[in-house]
Amino acid sequence: MMADRANPIRFGILGCAAIARKVSRAIALAPNATVVAVGSRSVDKAQRFIADNGIPPATRAHGSYEAVLDDPAVDAVYVPLPTSLHVRWAVAAAEHGKHVLLEKPTALCAADLDRILEACGSQGVQFMDSTMWMHHPRTARMRDLLSDPNRFGQLKALHSIFTFCGDTDFLQNDIRVKPDLDALGALGDLGWYCIRSVLWAADYELPKTAIAHHGCVKNQAGVILSCGATLVWDDGKVATFHCSFLSNLTMELCVMGTRGTLHLSDFVVPFEETPVQFKFSTDTKELDTGWQPLPSEHVISTDLPQEALMIQEFSRLAGSIRDSGSKPDEKWPIITRKTQLVLDAVKESIETGFEPVNVTD
Amino acid sequence: MMADRANPIRFGILGCAAIARKVSRAIALAPNATVVAVGSRSVDKAQRFIADNGIPPATRAHGSYEAVLDDPAVDAVYVPLPTSLHVRWAVAAAEHGKHVLLEKPTALCAADLDRILEACGSQGVQFMDSTMWMHHPRTARMRDLLSDPNRFGQLKALHSIFTFCGDTDFLQNDIRVKPDLDALGALGDLGWYCIRSVLWAADYELPKTAIAHHGCVKNQAGVILSCGATLVWDDGKVATFHCSFLSNLTMELCVMGTRGTLHLSDFVVPFEETPVQFKFSTDTKELDTGWQPLPSEHVISTDLPQEALMIQEFSRLAGSIRDSGSKPDEKWPIITRKTQLVLDAVKESIETGFEPVNVTD
Repeated sequence: MMADRANPIRFGILGCAAIARKVSRAIALAPNATVVAVGSRSVDKAQRFIADNGIPPATRAHGSYEAVLDDPAVDAVYVPLPTSLHVRWAVAAAEHGKHVLLEKPTALCAADLDRILEACGSQGVQFMDSTMWMHHPRTARMRDLLSDPNRFGQLKALHSIFTFCGDTDFLQNDIRVKPDLDALGALGDLGWYCIRSVLWAADYELPKTAIAHHGCVKNQAGVILSCGATLVWDDGKVATFHCSFLSNLTMELCVMGTRGTLHLSDFVVPFEETPVQFKFSTDTKELDTGWQPLPSEHVISTDLPQEALMIQEFSRLAGSIRDSGSKPDEKWPIITRKTQLVLDAVKESIETGFEPVNVTD
Repeated sequence: MMADRANPIRFGILGCAAIARKVSRAIALAPNATVVAVGSRSVDKAQRFIADNGIPPATRAHGSYEAVLDDPAVDAVYVPLPTSLHVRWAVAAAEHGKHVLLEKPTALCAADLDRILEACGSQGVQFMDSTMWMHHPRTARMRDLLSDPNRFGQLKALHSIFTFCGDTDFLQNDIRVKPDLDALGALGDLGWYCIRSVLWAADYELPKTAIAHHGCVKNQAGVILSCGATLVWDDGKVATFHCSFLSNLTMELCVMGTRGTLHLSDFVVPFEETPVQFKFSTDTKELDTGWQPLPSEHVISTDLPQEALMIQEFSRLAGSIRDSGSKPDEKWPIITRKTQLVLDAVKESIETGFEPVNVTD
């Protein structure tokens, strides 16, 4: 038996963060998932969230996160709480036998993440971080090309950018600029995606060393508003990324191999839900009058947006555990942990004045 | 009186490098320039170059570079010789009263470049480096947008990439991998364009510090095959670039301001001669279902390729000096020198183990 429309994975949402709006819509769109409970620090807030976001009125509004975990009708929780609360609530969810879909950045450091992953592992529940672009069929198509020695060759270098321009209110009040809430700032919120894109392109081979770039900007509380880093592998591969709350919305990914180049300008969130595109070129020559061949544009259409595909995949795995006694898919926690390890190394490099830091497991 | 079809600037070409083919075509296309002499170390080679490249058969073939400089019919020289020969021949050309269009990288270091610029200055001849994309009308259009506070805001960050994949013959035999010829390797050949794009976007404000990226690759002779760097300004602007002979042809430029983002994937050599494009977005928001507004695509058509526009501009300036007693335009040597200063700082950072190096004038 599988999770499907008649027997969906029943989600509880912990907290009413802005991103929970997008994910609750995704749960509604996914054919094998449904929202059954929303928990907030007040019942009123949970009720308002349900009413405002077109969530079925029968959904239970709980006045605490605990109540969601105690709700026997909840199979899985989506946790969009501030990063500083992740260990407490993700561990508690696992201990209540709930599958855990955790917002990124997953933890303030790998040691914290390990507590979450250990709880999920020992309870046999599925863990996945909420990195939506991983689940777009475009991502799989691009990965196929990067794996093709005749079209891409050997990975040599890549660059990833994710920025948006926070307004005054954001830069003063958002949880992502508060040292007691999302202490990793732009590195955790945006750099997470850049680091993930780097690992994805490198087929999840950890770099040996991370060196943060000079020019890191912090706010008065010491939270990172803008930073970048170089990541280096033993075989000579090199990656750089830049993330910032201070520049207009930008999401660039350029991956270079000996024979091919992949480029897209909307790798985190596609320009439009469908169709989406990317550019790829192979064995490109520069002639006197231009390029030969021109980069080719690949177009991919989807029935569901990437966040709904993420929910669908998570629910497929959770359903397989719930209904067929399967084991959790280890791929997702492994990828999460590698992302967190690189993030930790970049942060340490920033804190030590841009010195090289070994990425250690 | 101006240089025009009836009274063109008469070029002598010093050497028969591959790039001289493209520039001799550009001289033929420019309405105010013509080739009158080609000099090589052998007359045969010069004659062959003239015959092979559709240069008018009346063009004089000289068996030495000196003979071109002694040719009274030559107004200006184009110098595509290896970088190590630039001081000698560019200075000699200036001392013979010839205007100097010099291939990049212009010199092995700023001190060498200064000898060239001093010779051109004291002789009152026009100096320009051969950085073709500077002369494309697309470049001016993009610069207008970057200067618009309502569309771009304040420059915060940019990233520039120029790579191509040299084949085995290139990596063993090309002058650009030889320490006695083009000792700056990929940094001089490709990084030159990246650094120029950074300075161009920053309105030629020199960065304060250059820090080369770990992961620099050199050949056995110590010539740079792949490298990158971060450039930092006092006001918090930051730029990164990557250049390499080891990855498929890639030419990315992404410039981020508080309000706008500029992006193009063919900044050095357009995909096709005409039309050319770039993308620009302003005040972009991420909605649950995509971007608002989408980046707009700007399309620019030209009558002449950018290298011919470069020749036309150089010839206009040289003609104004020759025919109207004007002074050389100082803009071009100033830009060249800033590019060289940053390049020198990056090189020093590589040589000192990726330490920060002040960019000093």
